[in-house]
Amino acid sequence: MEDTVEALLHNLQPPKTASGSKVSVVGVGQVGMACAYSILQQGIVSELSLVDVVPEKLEGEMMDLKHGLAFTRPCVIKAGSDYSITAGSHLCIITAGCRQREGESRLSLVQRNIKIFRGIVPDLVKHSPETLILVVSNPVDILTYVTWKLSGLPKEHVFGSGTNLDSARFRFMLSEKLNIAASNCHGWIIGEHGDSSVAVWSGVNVAGVNLSALKTGGEKYKTWETEIHQKVIKSAYDIIKLKGYTSWAIGLSVAKIACGALQNNRHVFALSTNVNGIHGIDYDVFLSLPCVLGSNGLTHIIRQDLEAEEIEQLQKSAKNLYEIQQSLDFNQ
Amino acid sequence: MEDTVEALLHNLQPPKTASGSKVSVVGVGQVGMACAYSILQQGIVSELSLVDVVPEKLEGEMMDLKHGLAFTRPCVIKAGSDYSITAGSHLCIITAGCRQREGESRLSLVQRNIKIFRGIVPDLVKHSPETLILVVSNPVDILTYVTWKLSGLPKEHVFGSGTNLDSARFRFMLSEKLNIAASNCHGWIIGEHGDSSVAVWSGVNVAGVNLSALKTGGEKYKTWETEIHQKVIKSAYDIIKLKGYTSWAIGLSVAKIACGALQNNRHVFALSTNVNGIHGIDYDVFLSLPCVLGSNGLTHIIRQDLEAEEIEQLQKSAKNLYEIQQSLDFNQ
Amino acid sequence: MEDTVEALLHNLQPPKTASGSKVSVVGVGQVGMACAYSILQQGIVSELSLVDVVPEKLEGEMMDLKHGLAFTRPCVIKAGSDYSITAGSHLCIITAGCRQREGESRLSLVQRNIKIFRGIVPDLVKHSPETLILVVSNPVDILTYVTWKLSGLPKEHVFGSGTNLDSARFRFMLSEKLNIAASNCHGWIIGEHGDSSVAVWSGVNVAGVNLSALKTGGEKYKTWETEIHQKVIKSAYDIIKLKGYTSWAIGLSVAKIACGALQNNRHVFALSTNVNGIHGIDYDVFLSLPCVLGSNGLTHIIRQDLEAEEIEQLQKSAKNLYEIQQSLDFNQ
Amino acid sequence: MEDTVEALLHNLQPPKTASGSKVSVVGVGQVGMACAYSILQQGIVSELSLVDVVPEKLEGEMMDLKHGLAFTRPCVIKAGSDYSITAGSHLCIITAGCRQREGESRLSLVQRNIKIFRGIVPDLVKHSPETLILVVSNPVDILTYVTWKLSGLPKEHVFGSGTNLDSARFRFMLSEKLNIAASNCHGWIIGEHGDSSVAVWSGVNVAGVNLSALKTGGEKYKTWETEIHQKVIKSAYDIIKLKGYTSWAIGLSVAKIACGALQNNRHVFALSTNVNGIHGIDYDVFLSLPCVLGSNGLTHIIRQDLEAEEIEQLQKSAKNLYEIQQSLDFNQ
Repeated sequence: MEDTVEALLHNLQPPKTASGSKVSVVGVGQVGMACAYSILQQGIVSELSLVDVVPEKLEGEMMDLKHGLAFTRPCVIKAGSDYSITAGSHLCIITAGCRQREGESRLSLVQRNIKIFRGIVPDLVKHSPETLILVVSNPVDILTYVTWKLSGLPKEHVFGSGTNLDSARFRFMLSEKLNIAASNCHGWIIGEHGDSSVAVWSGVNVAGVNLSALKTGGEKYKTWETEIHQKVIKSAYDIIKLKGYTSWAIGLSVAKIACGALQNNRHVFALSTNVNGIHGIDYDVFLSLPCVLGSNGLTHIIRQDLEAEEIEQLQKSAKNLYEIQQSLDFNQ
Repeated sequence: MEDTVEALLHNLQPPKTASGSKVSVVGVGQVGMACAYSILQQGIVSELSLVDVVPEKLEGEMMDLKHGLAFTRPCVIKAGSDYSITAGSHLCIITAGCRQREGESRLSLVQRNIKIFRGIVPDLVKHSPETLILVVSNPVDILTYVTWKLSGLPKEHVFGSGTNLDSARFRFMLSEKLNIAASNCHGWIIGEHGDSSVAVWSGVNVAGVNLSALKTGGEKYKTWETEIHQKVIKSAYDIIKLKGYTSWAIGLSVAKIACGALQNNRHVFALSTNVNGIHGIDYDVFLSLPCVLGSNGLTHIIRQDLEAEEIEQLQKSAKNLYEIQQSLDFNQ
Repeated sequence: MEDTVEALLHNLQPPKTASGSKVSVVGVGQVGMACAYSILQQGIVSELSLVDVVPEKLEGEMMDLKHGLAFTRPCVIKAGSDYSITAGSHLCIITAGCRQREGESRLSLVQRNIKIFRGIVPDLVKHSPETLILVVSNPVDILTYVTWKLSGLPKEHVFGSGTNLDSARFRFMLSEKLNIAASNCHGWIIGEHGDSSVAVWSGVNVAGVNLSALKTGGEKYKTWETEIHQKVIKSAYDIIKLKGYTSWAIGLSVAKIACGALQNNRHVFALSTNVNGIHGIDYDVFLSLPCVLGSNGLTHIIRQDLEAEEIEQLQKSAKNLYEIQQSLDFNQ
Repeated sequence: MEDTVEALLHNLQPPKTASGSKVSVVGVGQVGMACAYSILQQGIVSELSLVDVVPEKLEGEMMDLKHGLAFTRPCVIKAGSDYSITAGSHLCIITAGCRQREGESRLSLVQRNIKIFRGIVPDLVKHSPETLILVVSNPVDILTYVTWKLSGLPKEHVFGSGTNLDSARFRFMLSEKLNIAASNCHGWIIGEHGDSSVAVWSGVNVAGVNLSALKTGGEKYKTWETEIHQKVIKSAYDIIKLKGYTSWAIGLSVAKIACGALQNNRHVFALSTNVNGIHGIDYDVFLSLPCVLGSNGLTHIIRQDLEAEEIEQLQKSAKNLYEIQQSLDFNQ
């Protein structure tokens, strides 16, 4: 074959191997692979590295993605357990982590994940000191805090997927109800990713109309608000119960965030970020708020005009998370 | 909520619910879902229906896809076990089927799948008499024949994914070796999908150069030809061994074929088709050859200038498949 | 060549020539061609027909577009002065029309354009009785009314590009000022396309925040509101003065509307529509309001919660346009 | 407004202004603007700078593009006569230049363009010493040589659009004749852009079939070969005669090249490059050959297996161009 290559190609200079946008995905489970597949399909990266601890699965996933390259934009795909393949990443996405055991406390789960993250985060930063890190593993808020601590990176460089998917689910449900494209249905779920998330009804806007200002439904409307928010919260539980895990929507959500980060698009996403200094919270804790994302990470947090009740809920979540943080042992 | 909708929207006429391109996917296993996810992400359909016999899994997959709709082009997504949701499909993709048991003969496997397909194909055709059918389940060639028989559709309307993915793998491997984009590396794997497929080396062309015409490597080149073809054939086995199944590349391959069919793009794909009348085969049997695909199905088969040895291999595969066909019991 | 085609292709059935989405563009001036080029580049149509009265220009534009087809999705492109080439259009876009002469009254301009439209609209409807018609020519509101009258089509099938571009300019200016992606800056310009358009400040929403509710700037904010609206209104004048015409942004605006109409995306656009029955207007007159667009045309108008002053302005515009309408001679 | 911005946004860090891919276009005539518009629409750049000497036109074109940003991926657009706005470009596209006067010799035209290019090239390189330069102005081969000389850049960094569009026209014509998607019709026009270009028939390949190997048509096929090549050559003349200039296809061709260069896609394009050392040419002269393009410019030239006649034609063109080069005065 070398003779054929030689006969075919007149060399001018060596190809550039590391070029354009590089993304690394840690963890090739259902979530990690849905992220990788979506990112590949959107044609936003020149290089994609997959890291995991199970070599066979890793090799299989890499081969399967590579064989799709005749149908996508060219991309260099690597896989391995050695973090050197992540060198020069612009964005690292962490989807690894262990799941909650039956009866296990949240603190215990986090503590086990810290151990795993200690084997991930410093290695990522060592090979890509300028990287942004997007944490997807759950519980996402506290693991984003953990990642920030372990990384030594500026707080703007470390963020979690947070309630971005919750917001998307919310917008989809509005869209389905109104039979209007989701891109015209605007609404935000903020706060802690999970049961205590906050739906910011005062800011819901459909095609230029503040929905809550319509004030047409009175109590019935209020009930509907509660129902739709509960449906959003239940979504993940329902899907896990039905198919065992969630993957497609989180994959698309992460691909969109990755796109925003790599292309400096200045989109606003509901991301888990250090909210110290906002909404009366005055310590380092990570919760989702709408953030402006550029290629240097988060540049602004949107100051939403929240109602007293909403701020209270945020502060309560913050306090709970803060207490867990205080109990964490980073050296275990 | 109804009051709010009423207050927000002034009605002119009812929205059109069935519009544009509709695709149905039968079987929501790893392959079916990778197809559905890819099709959704490429924004090529207005309606997507998923059919399977496991209601929980089906519901979970549907919800998970739907929650991604805030990130994609709008699409109506349905799921159910009742084929009425597939009504009006332009393309039905069959990924359902049972896997080979240890020690099971191929004939026995096909026979079991006929039973399954008898519960699928007539129902699809009943609700979408004008549909195209793309068969992905394996063994793909014989199941495409079975589908054609069960459907009563014209032969141009029923085709199998065949060696389209094999060709893509081949092109990717050329691309990786030469460090040239796959879209400039042209080559075709034809014939029976599997071990007896044929790599048409005489037609391999890279950026305007007939690779085989370079005649530079002599024996070494010949060896390399054999190696790369063997690597293509081994691909599926390797990935299944490593990760348990193949999904991503077949998903992208199918999405590309779907796109060609829905948009009347007149692309050429290596699809399993009734080759009666070509390359000296004079009976109804399905094998992959390069076919021109439009919105009315296959319109032309490319007459490749094959070598005697290649034609012989094709005819041998055809005969084997024909013999299996003769033994099939469609009424069992 | 026929021998070669014969040798290359084994025929199964004739290709489908009329398939998928067809768009016709009437008028191949700068605006018409920017629309055609954008639509082609976005890969949303299977067939594109260009109609004009100048055969050379028409032929040149068609050839120039066709030569780009190796870089886009396949598309059948036709051009001619005979409307038979528009047969079967899903959407017809009218960009033809004469420009205002120095000192000419608006009524006289409209009257001259009616004459031109009488040579266009009935022919379009004759060959595509189910078509939607998008009017881009100016003055767009009254010419949309004229088109509706001449077409005999239901009012939901005829709409004008109206203030969709004004709204886009408005959103871009907000985006530029805030350094946030335009897709997160929501705002609407409605009413008559031109000097008397209305900026609906009460509904401006950035990432979930009602901008006017911030009430931070008092008088200064009010001034800024006026300034940005004036800047939007001046935009077209400025560009025409600087480069002689506007083309690129209107081309993108129209391509987006076309995409929404062809794909049944249910997006909301600010389109010129018959507002009879809304905001206290009780006669047939066309003005822009946010409308939900599907493949069967407009299905809903968004009832924005306008301020008294805004409604007054709308009604005043409506009355002016109505008076012009009363003076029009459709038989001249 | 500043108060509003302050109230809305909590600052974390300043946005990154120069990020991702930057392209500069010199010359905002019909060709330059079609290039800029196509590049913008394909969403491949984060920053786009337009340079010209006519400030009004420049300002108008910039405004018109900017107002389309609500419909495209975010992009920073600048325009000015001062080359400082091009600083940090990854790719500079030169479309400026004067047209041939009636009766003017080619040498005189080139000489006048050298004067113009002396006011462009050194300024581009001064502000973007690492840039690639794509020359589009005609006569493209000699002006690419001139640009290379004036720039002091490595020869791999300077290339001309050459026969990339001719090749696209050729493939489109094949595609139209065969009714097969252009992406499956492969063929190359190489050599001097213009009347003496060479169609490499021996390498024409449709879906895996070497068209010339079909040898079915004998003399008739030969005639058809000549006809289609003549039609390609005549294309530009015809369009200029019909509409005054060519724009759309060259815009798409350039956008595709830009995409390949920015994304390190390793596509093969027919670009005007320094062919010293290939096909028996042993001096610095620029002609189009298929080249592999990466983010560091051209990395390889494809060694096509040309026929004696084709090589002769290439060498003749090379000699003619070389003679003109010898007469050029770079200091005039």
